[in-house]
Amino acid sequence: MTAENRLHFGGDYNPEQWPEETWAEDMRLMKEAGVTMVTAGIFSWAKVEPRPGVYEFGWFDRVMDHLGDAGIRVCLATMTASPPPWLSRLHPEILPETEDGRRTWPGGRQHYCPSSPVYRAHATRLVERLATRYAEHPALDTWHVGNEYGCHTRRCFCDVSAADFRRWLGERYDTVDALNDAWSTAFWSQRYDSFEEVLPPRLAPTFANPAQQLDYWRFSDDALRQCYLAEHAVLRRVTPDLPITTNLMPQHKPVDAFAWAPHQDVMSLDYYQDPYDPQAHLGAALTFDVMRSARHGQPWMLLEQAPGAVNWRPRNGPKKPGTMRLWSWQAVAQGADAVLYFQWRQSRGGAEKFHSAMLPHTGAETRIFREVSELGRELDSVPEIAGTRSRADVALLTDWNSWWALELDSHPSTALDQTLINRAHHQALFEAGVTCDIIPPDRDLTGYRLVVVPNLYLLSEENAHRLESYVEGGGHLLVSFFSGIVDTCDRVQLGGYPAYLRRLLGLRTEEFWPLAEGASVSVEGELNGSADLWSEAIGLEGADAVARFADGDLAGHPAVTRHTYGSGTAWYVGTRLEPGALRALMDRVRAGAGVRPVLPGLPEHVQATVRESADHSFLFLLNHGASSALVELPAPLRDRLRPSAEPTATVTLPPRGVAVLQR
Amino acid sequence: MTAENRLHFGGDYNPEQWPEETWAEDMRLMKEAGVTMVTAGIFSWAKVEPRPGVYEFGWFDRVMDHLGDAGIRVCLATMTASPPPWLSRLHPEILPETEDGRRTWPGGRQHYCPSSPVYRAHATRLVERLATRYAEHPALDTWHVGNEYGCHTRRCFCDVSAADFRRWLGERYDTVDALNDAWSTAFWSQRYDSFEEVLPPRLAPTFANPAQQLDYWRFSDDALRQCYLAEHAVLRRVTPDLPITTNLMPQHKPVDAFAWAPHQDVMSLDYYQDPYDPQAHLGAALTFDVMRSARHGQPWMLLEQAPGAVNWRPRNGPKKPGTMRLWSWQAVAQGADAVLYFQWRQSRGGAEKFHSAMLPHTGAETRIFREVSELGRELDSVPEIAGTRSRADVALLTDWNSWWALELDSHPSTALDQTLINRAHHQALFEAGVTCDIIPPDRDLTGYRLVVVPNLYLLSEENAHRLESYVEGGGHLLVSFFSGIVDTCDRVQLGGYPAYLRRLLGLRTEEFWPLAEGASVSVEGELNGSADLWSEAIGLEGADAVARFADGDLAGHPAVTRHTYGSGTAWYVGTRLEPGALRALMDRVRAGAGVRPVLPGLPEHVQATVRESADHSFLFLLNHGASSALVELPAPLRDRLRPSAEPTATVTLPPRGVAVLQR
Amino acid sequence: MTAENRLHFGGDYNPEQWPEETWAEDMRLMKEAGVTMVTAGIFSWAKVEPRPGVYEFGWFDRVMDHLGDAGIRVCLATMTASPPPWLSRLHPEILPETEDGRRTWPGGRQHYCPSSPVYRAHATRLVERLATRYAEHPALDTWHVGNEYGCHTRRCFCDVSAADFRRWLGERYDTVDALNDAWSTAFWSQRYDSFEEVLPPRLAPTFANPAQQLDYWRFSDDALRQCYLAEHAVLRRVTPDLPITTNLMPQHKPVDAFAWAPHQDVMSLDYYQDPYDPQAHLGAALTFDVMRSARHGQPWMLLEQAPGAVNWRPRNGPKKPGTMRLWSWQAVAQGADAVLYFQWRQSRGGAEKFHSAMLPHTGAETRIFREVSELGRELDSVPEIAGTRSRADVALLTDWNSWWALELDSHPSTALDQTLINRAHHQALFEAGVTCDIIPPDRDLTGYRLVVVPNLYLLSEENAHRLESYVEGGGHLLVSFFSGIVDTCDRVQLGGYPAYLRRLLGLRTEEFWPLAEGASVSVEGELNGSADLWSEAIGLEGADAVARFADGDLAGHPAVTRHTYGSGTAWYVGTRLEPGALRALMDRVRAGAGVRPVLPGLPEHVQATVRESADHSFLFLLNHGASSALVELPAPLRDRLRPSAEPTATVTLPPRGVAVLQR
Repeated sequence: MTAENRLHFGGDYNPEQWPEETWAEDMRLMKEAGVTMVTAGIFSWAKVEPRPGVYEFGWFDRVMDHLGDAGIRVCLATMTASPPPWLSRLHPEILPETEDGRRTWPGGRQHYCPSSPVYRAHATRLVERLATRYAEHPALDTWHVGNEYGCHTRRCFCDVSAADFRRWLGERYDTVDALNDAWSTAFWSQRYDSFEEVLPPRLAPTFANPAQQLDYWRFSDDALRQCYLAEHAVLRRVTPDLPITTNLMPQHKPVDAFAWAPHQDVMSLDYYQDPYDPQAHLGAALTFDVMRSARHGQPWMLLEQAPGAVNWRPRNGPKKPGTMRLWSWQAVAQGADAVLYFQWRQSRGGAEKFHSAMLPHTGAETRIFREVSELGRELDSVPEIAGTRSRADVALLTDWNSWWALELDSHPSTALDQTLINRAHHQALFEAGVTCDIIPPDRDLTGYRLVVVPNLYLLSEENAHRLESYVEGGGHLLVSFFSGIVDTCDRVQLGGYPAYLRRLLGLRTEEFWPLAEGASVSVEGELNGSADLWSEAIGLEGADAVARFADGDLAGHPAVTRHTYGSGTAWYVGTRLEPGALRALMDRVRAGAGVRPVLPGLPEHVQATVRESADHSFLFLLNHGASSALVELPAPLRDRLRPSAEPTATVTLPPRGVAVLQR
Repeated sequence: MTAENRLHFGGDYNPEQWPEETWAEDMRLMKEAGVTMVTAGIFSWAKVEPRPGVYEFGWFDRVMDHLGDAGIRVCLATMTASPPPWLSRLHPEILPETEDGRRTWPGGRQHYCPSSPVYRAHATRLVERLATRYAEHPALDTWHVGNEYGCHTRRCFCDVSAADFRRWLGERYDTVDALNDAWSTAFWSQRYDSFEEVLPPRLAPTFANPAQQLDYWRFSDDALRQCYLAEHAVLRRVTPDLPITTNLMPQHKPVDAFAWAPHQDVMSLDYYQDPYDPQAHLGAALTFDVMRSARHGQPWMLLEQAPGAVNWRPRNGPKKPGTMRLWSWQAVAQGADAVLYFQWRQSRGGAEKFHSAMLPHTGAETRIFREVSELGRELDSVPEIAGTRSRADVALLTDWNSWWALELDSHPSTALDQTLINRAHHQALFEAGVTCDIIPPDRDLTGYRLVVVPNLYLLSEENAHRLESYVEGGGHLLVSFFSGIVDTCDRVQLGGYPAYLRRLLGLRTEEFWPLAEGASVSVEGELNGSADLWSEAIGLEGADAVARFADGDLAGHPAVTRHTYGSGTAWYVGTRLEPGALRALMDRVRAGAGVRPVLPGLPEHVQATVRESADHSFLFLLNHGASSALVELPAPLRDRLRPSAEPTATVTLPPRGVAVLQR
Repeated sequence: MTAENRLHFGGDYNPEQWPEETWAEDMRLMKEAGVTMVTAGIFSWAKVEPRPGVYEFGWFDRVMDHLGDAGIRVCLATMTASPPPWLSRLHPEILPETEDGRRTWPGGRQHYCPSSPVYRAHATRLVERLATRYAEHPALDTWHVGNEYGCHTRRCFCDVSAADFRRWLGERYDTVDALNDAWSTAFWSQRYDSFEEVLPPRLAPTFANPAQQLDYWRFSDDALRQCYLAEHAVLRRVTPDLPITTNLMPQHKPVDAFAWAPHQDVMSLDYYQDPYDPQAHLGAALTFDVMRSARHGQPWMLLEQAPGAVNWRPRNGPKKPGTMRLWSWQAVAQGADAVLYFQWRQSRGGAEKFHSAMLPHTGAETRIFREVSELGRELDSVPEIAGTRSRADVALLTDWNSWWALELDSHPSTALDQTLINRAHHQALFEAGVTCDIIPPDRDLTGYRLVVVPNLYLLSEENAHRLESYVEGGGHLLVSFFSGIVDTCDRVQLGGYPAYLRRLLGLRTEEFWPLAEGASVSVEGELNGSADLWSEAIGLEGADAVARFADGDLAGHPAVTRHTYGSGTAWYVGTRLEPGALRALMDRVRAGAGVRPVLPGLPEHVQATVRESADHSFLFLLNHGASSALVELPAPLRDRLRPSAEPTATVTLPPRGVAVLQR
């Protein structure tokens, strides 16, 4: 979004669903709700181009004018997220195919093969028209390209994709010998004699080649990104000064947020907590940290959230009173400068008619519209937050390449879930009140007191050396199990796991010892507790055993180790500790690294973050618990959400309570 | 069947499975078993037309003559249920395709696309021959068209179906603008520019358009019905005086029994209770009531049931002694004038060889043949039952259109199951001993003291007004949750749920509040108990709260309401009450409406029904429980099943006992 | 393998995965580990024939020479298990199709339609070259054709397979009338007018014809076998004196071990116990007995096992210390003369890189390499075992035809699992320490004291008569439920079950009475215990009731019977007894038949077997339990695995302990 001294507030606006008479009421109620920005046009392609090359922009001109007149900024979608029926009728080859060769058809949305040149040509032709027409419109603020890339069509396996994959492989490997080497095709007689023989990893009689699968994840992410970049190029050319974004999805395996971030002028996110989940704020906290970190701390946009229930889970709970406000402020506390919803007015028909909206079926005399409007007023009351940033002493490393590789088949245990592993480590920091950046392993580590590697199964030699240098120079590092196992081609590093990290960690793992489903073991030593999922036979080569397995096949073997290396310390965790034990370990590691929480003595379930700039400093306190919490402040501060209140040295937060304290 | 003063008894007769020598024994044993009617020829197509246009009816002539000579009436199948292999070899395009594009092949049965003109042409050509040949045969009693329409091929998604769907939509909507409006295609850029662009709701990347899905259910039901009607037209022309039927399946989603009923001269049903299910009689009771009500009380035919075990469940329990008799009499007690089985002689080979038959593999010296023969004698002994009817003070409304719509995806909760919801409400009446009609919402409600709406998610404005008039005129109405939400195009009625019923019910629901899986809440007030699955935020606008939520997010909000409207009363249930609480509520509602049970003080698990005519009145008592039950009669009556017994004022029913008391 | 006075030891050797420099180290470490034989070339096709008709054997010549120089025998694979990418690119019609029409693609292995003439032509062309080139190579010992036939592509349903199926049916049935009769096509209008109309049992709207399904299992097994035999013919012609084998998989439904055995010169097996399974040795015991029995007691080869963990289960546990040794000796104790692993050197890349190998990623300084090498030395120390054989008084009958038929759909209960039923009966013998042959029902029964039929649902009249003669002549027979029901065309034998066995068993079953999931019943009489899964209504016709059902629907009816017939006795078990009760029954039956255990008074979990020849007699003792066990010997014997130890009359086996006692 264009930099402004305000937190933006609003939602998706889909006026084509309603008779034009409704639009004036929309403007009136938007003002009432405090809306400052809408995302418009996301699903307008079929209406603005009702048949090939015939454009009907008149109605949309009026929408833009209405919004402009109302002083509402427009995040304008490129309208390409859902191709109109005529496109796939004329070109059925744009329809995606599943891994097992089943075509997916129109009727939903996102029914296009990301590699399709036909789709891209039609999309960019539309974007050219759109950009040209509205380039100078005063309401236009930001470009919103596509929508939720890869949400439904994550990967396509059709013949068009196959040809594009071969082109991509040719560019990546140059020679077929290099491909054969990278893919270890000597196994199972898979040697390719030419690129022409290569196919996507379609349904095979048994496990498909893992390096082929890994490259297909990479290729598919790139194919989606090329769709984005094709539109991006048009927009940059026509409106060089306008910011461009696309709304990513949380912890979304098909889309590598770190690879897309450099191509976005501002990160934006859609986030839909499950209101039934008592730990919903933990998943959100992780994702929001990714968003904040992806572009090095730059404020981001919460481009979609639900005012109440969604419609796409099997059972869709509403957000009980105060929850929507709390979770919206959580986004701001973790770096968002905009809070938007899907959608403004709840649809009468279609697949998402039971998805809540700012203006419900029942109208404006509703709990939801009241809560929305109150939040709009609150956000409007603290414009100085916009542009402020947070800083972190801790970096948690993660990597989409490693994620794709980790969750391939035919592993020691297929129960390793990257998201859950990351979340467990993040939770141990979050609950301690520690701010944490989440960054890829090739990011500069200088300045961090502690680096946490929940799991990097795939780790390049270069990145392993960067970790080594980091510790050598005094850094503190915590690495958890099954990290550093394969190179970028999913080939095992030989000579004892984790090969490139052995010297740094001071150990050699001889065998993986995954645990059976439901089985657990105990660890004891400086740290005591239970563990499950994973264990491994660690031999010490310089490290100390912080804890050892107390029972099971590996009783007596090291479970958690610590190794002084250069001026720093490297810890290794060879099993999955239960949350309490992991928290205890993290606290110990953190203390050694000199990492402090935002606020000492924070009550359970209370989140504290700081955003600051040269001129302002805000302390956010959010109570995610079901009881009131008393927070002691370092000094008397004023709560900007209670304008009449005096500065106080303690804050009592009711359940779901929020305070924005200005220093 | 042709009206006769008898209850028909018999089964499917498939003589082509056996050498012709066997047929004489069949006739002899049929007489011994009391068989009066068989259904013949269901799977004879491949034998009577072994290759295209070549007919071999000779063997079937002999079958008909045998039956005629034995005095057994024939319900003659049109033989079109399973096309012969040559048809799909010549015309592979008749083979159905699944939603995700997988063709289904010969090898089972019902492997034809219902929209296929090729199938219909071959079927009607055969029917013309068959009808002409046997029009005057003295054994011919009734036509049995096809067999279990939609049992296996519920819906077809092939290109032939797609073209037929477009034709159907053209007839329904006339213009593509009307289609766009009805389907809310403005959402997700689905606007059609011409009918040519429309497809069935095939596998899509995400939820397909719900109105498209709903219309596909309607279309698919209609495509099956057109198959039936095409044969029906031939039969009506050739044998204008013979009754025509087809055997429906119980609570069968693809086939709208209410829409088919006007085209049948007599309703007929296949019903297969699960002997392992201790509540099997409850499901049967509901279905039998549908059969009786579909043609306004006209007696119906139980065209198929199993004498013992079936073969198509994962584990197939036998019917323990007395069970088959009990369940057969239940059908008669609920309006059946015929009791037939699948099948006469148990097959040696093929897919149903382990399906029990009247004459088992083991022969006539068996428990099953004995029980069958005894039942035959019993039914023969009370011919006056034939033609008698029941009357009901209560109507339970249900609607296939609403069912289809209710169970679409992307709803507040996808755990709402129309059959279970209907059954829960029916059970509360059944267990109270109350007779109940089950009718569509456009049926005349005059004369009912109470109308129960378990769920009509989809409700037209016109039908909502009919409910309003009914109550206004003094009727009593009970409506359960998530009713009256959408119009016939699955578009939400705005302004607070349930829009068209708000005035009648005196309330406004602002938000749906479905419960998480496994969660429950309590209600308290005039009614106390637990509830689960669903809740909603009800605001009273004239109604009284009969019970309120006692805990959970909605604690204190109304859960069950009552509203005096005009001269009547309308009750609303905003959650799923556990059976005891629903029963208590239903008893209270019923008492207010002046609805009485067939017999007061009926013991638990005993069913009581009445069938009567100008000349006769029968009180049926059936003990579905595991203990003996003592039933007090209003006056001394004679049990027609114990011919020698004197009239008594009490009847003791052993477990699975039956009494047919004549007044 | 070529007969030699040694137990062979080694593994799969896949040198193409490694740079040629590694090979010398391989030879050195193989010698260190005691390797005497490797299986080479399994996945070398793409490397030796990099494009059609272009052969590059030079590198493989060097491999063979290296091995020859090191004195290691080669079990040479025909390299046809995984076709190279160019073959399916040139001929996509060789790719298999699933039952529901989905093609399976390259990327894994075994991606060929077994009926494909193109595949067979390319395979045999390669084999011709290979055999010719290495016919005289001194290292060549045995041919290993293909690999794990049917492991992934069990059955193919493509058009090529369909045509081959029609050919096969033509040969089997000669006329289409015979086919119609065999398949009972009169049911469901399935009569074929010509073979041209017949298809594989592809996805159908409902249950496909069971006889068609059964024949498709037969045909598919035969199609795989024809692949094997096509290569076999080339090898036999070029190298008439060399033994030929192929590695079967354990209890592998698609491949009828008894039908393949006559075409193998030596049986060989791949076996992968699940280390998490505390009863893993029981499944192995059954399979090993099949291997030993398939070729009438001839020693067999354990061609693949894992030194530690595998990679293809969801969670892959390692073999804890001593386990691999124990299970390897179990194979030898049950008749193996060779113990090989997959694979020699653990792969760096590809789908099986996390499958353990003799030489792990971590290298030779590892637990696994140490345990492997120690086992190599042990096996080398007892060469006299080679060629010795076991004898059994008990035969357990099983039949792939019956297995295929038993597990078809639409049965009284689909919960009947042939493998589990067989295993339960085998376990009752194994735990008693009784040696047992496992043979097909047409094998000569003379000389067995006891024959056990766990389940032969399908039983030809001829084989039924053979059982009758066996008992008549003094044999003892135990038959369990649902045996003797259908003929070879899956047609029920009429007149009371089990028709052909009724006279022999002295009973008539009138109705099957399968039990609901989770339900159980008690039996009491001479035998007491619980039972589940199955019951049936048995009428005695000469037999005695050994036990009767004590509760449930059949309370009072016979559950287990005994019938004196001729000079022998036939027992029948009409339910699934819990293991303790079955063991008690088996002990009783066994005692009556005069069958003794290998060693009386064997402690729990200890296995005892004997292998002997004219010159030698070995008693193997294996402790599968978790505690030490003391075994009393009939006389003082010397443990060949403890060369320095004196003969003793008792042996103490630690957990996982093994003793090889020579008489």
